[in-house]
Amino acid sequence: MTTAVVGLGLIGGSLCKTIKKNTSHTVYGFDLDNTISTYALMDGGIDRILDDENISECDFILLCVYPKATVEFLKEKAPLIKKDAVVIDCGGVKKAICESCFEIANEHGFTFIGGHPMAGLHHSGYKNSTADLFIDASMILTPQSTDDIALLESVTLFVKSLGFSTVTVTTPDEHDTIIAFTSQLAHVVSNAYVKSPQAKAHKGFSAGSYKDMTRVARLNENMWTELFMENKEHLIFEIDHLIKSLNEYKEAMQNDDVDTLKALLKDGSDRKKSIDF
Amino acid sequence: MTTAVVGLGLIGGSLCKTIKKNTSHTVYGFDLDNTISTYALMDGGIDRILDDENISECDFILLCVYPKATVEFLKEKAPLIKKDAVVIDCGGVKKAICESCFEIANEHGFTFIGGHPMAGLHHSGYKNSTADLFIDASMILTPQSTDDIALLESVTLFVKSLGFSTVTVTTPDEHDTIIAFTSQLAHVVSNAYVKSPQAKAHKGFSAGSYKDMTRVARLNENMWTELFMENKEHLIFEIDHLIKSLNEYKEAMQNDDVDTLKALLKDGSDRKKSIDF
Repeated sequence: MTTAVVGLGLIGGSLCKTIKKNTSHTVYGFDLDNTISTYALMDGGIDRILDDENISECDFILLCVYPKATVEFLKEKAPLIKKDAVVIDCGGVKKAICESCFEIANEHGFTFIGGHPMAGLHHSGYKNSTADLFIDASMILTPQSTDDIALLESVTLFVKSLGFSTVTVTTPDEHDTIIAFTSQLAHVVSNAYVKSPQAKAHKGFSAGSYKDMTRVARLNENMWTELFMENKEHLIFEIDHLIKSLNEYKEAMQNDDVDTLKALLKDGSDRKKSIDF
Repeated sequence: MTTAVVGLGLIGGSLCKTIKKNTSHTVYGFDLDNTISTYALMDGGIDRILDDENISECDFILLCVYPKATVEFLKEKAPLIKKDAVVIDCGGVKKAICESCFEIANEHGFTFIGGHPMAGLHHSGYKNSTADLFIDASMILTPQSTDDIALLESVTLFVKSLGFSTVTVTTPDEHDTIIAFTSQLAHVVSNAYVKSPQAKAHKGFSAGSYKDMTRVARLNENMWTELFMENKEHLIFEIDHLIKSLNEYKEAMQNDDVDTLKALLKDGSDRKKSIDF
């Protein structure tokens, strides 16, 4: 089997290294920054640099670039991709990407599946990529249809060979709705949290709760801006919902309404227990 | 040396076990729930149950109960406490507690120091207490004055013998201002976060950011209600500031203002880098 990885950042680089480590696939890789492609070739992360010639040899093509670049790449290279190839993207939003990519794939006769590896670090780039980033992580797949069970089975086997413990199959729309809450809102809140005038003075006054709350405040603003804009409807809903909730605690305190404050806290605590235990 | 611990919950119980493990102090303990005092006696967490007789033998008295109960206990027992004893509370707010307790201590001639061990778990109670809860944690002290260096030095030595790596000396007001941000706001946000309609569907769609964001959503609503009410001015300020920040991201998205959204994210990311690296 030959697998191509397009975009050798943290996710793409980690995929290359993991595939090389865990499977017998030959790995072709490409990054717009030629020094990174060359480096990945030198450090053994990839076997060859992907080009317009050898892309036709690839059985799996993993696209690990920003959403717009994903669609542009696929549009440009579609005529070169073989019919029984499976192309999977790794972008953090699915509806915008899948609508375009399903159409391109249908037109050219290969298969496109939306993908989202639920793994990351707050450091980006090939230099931080590792062969163990996906261990016990969850991989979300959004296929165009779930009719071809054999295809989904082979993709699941491949994904699990990379260390993922869970494969969740869903629709692009469902993915974007839930991811706005589980990942995007968390990044917005964490990033906003450190803007308090108290933030600089926190040393000696903070324990685990501050640390956890602000862990993902440090982020790649170019990538997240594109992801947020592509999913802004769902993300705005989540921000509004959180602001509404925060205002309830605030109003209870302003009104010296101890019973309501306690009920709000109990409700949140009970929800957390019912969800995660 | 003899040390008393009043309130054998997670913090009090862990203090008993740590003092017994790390020092040669004799430990007297008391909990309103008599079965817990008896259990702590049986499992060796304390050497004797604290009472109105033996409290006069104690060199250190650590108060590990809610803010109002701290003041009530000290008011009631003050005549029984010896003059060279040092009383330290472990409550999460300091101004309300210290104002009353400094006055009681002055009147009766012993020393009171406000304290706040920056350690905790999302499970409470003596049954979850351990002798390693304070390892590498920070202890905040709010003494009435910083004139008595020898006293602060002996308290610091005692505190560090329990595993704390940092002792931060500050004023009650400064403590409450900063703790509203580093701890209280984090608990409010985490507790509010899980109220999204998407929360129940998160499995398979979440990675570290959701987990970290909601870790402290599960909390003791009785304790936190009292802590929040005692510090509501600072906490309301922090909630307002966070809501204002969240609205900026939301408005940028609503206006399709990509440049502003990117600048907001870069600002948060830069602040995090400058604060924590």
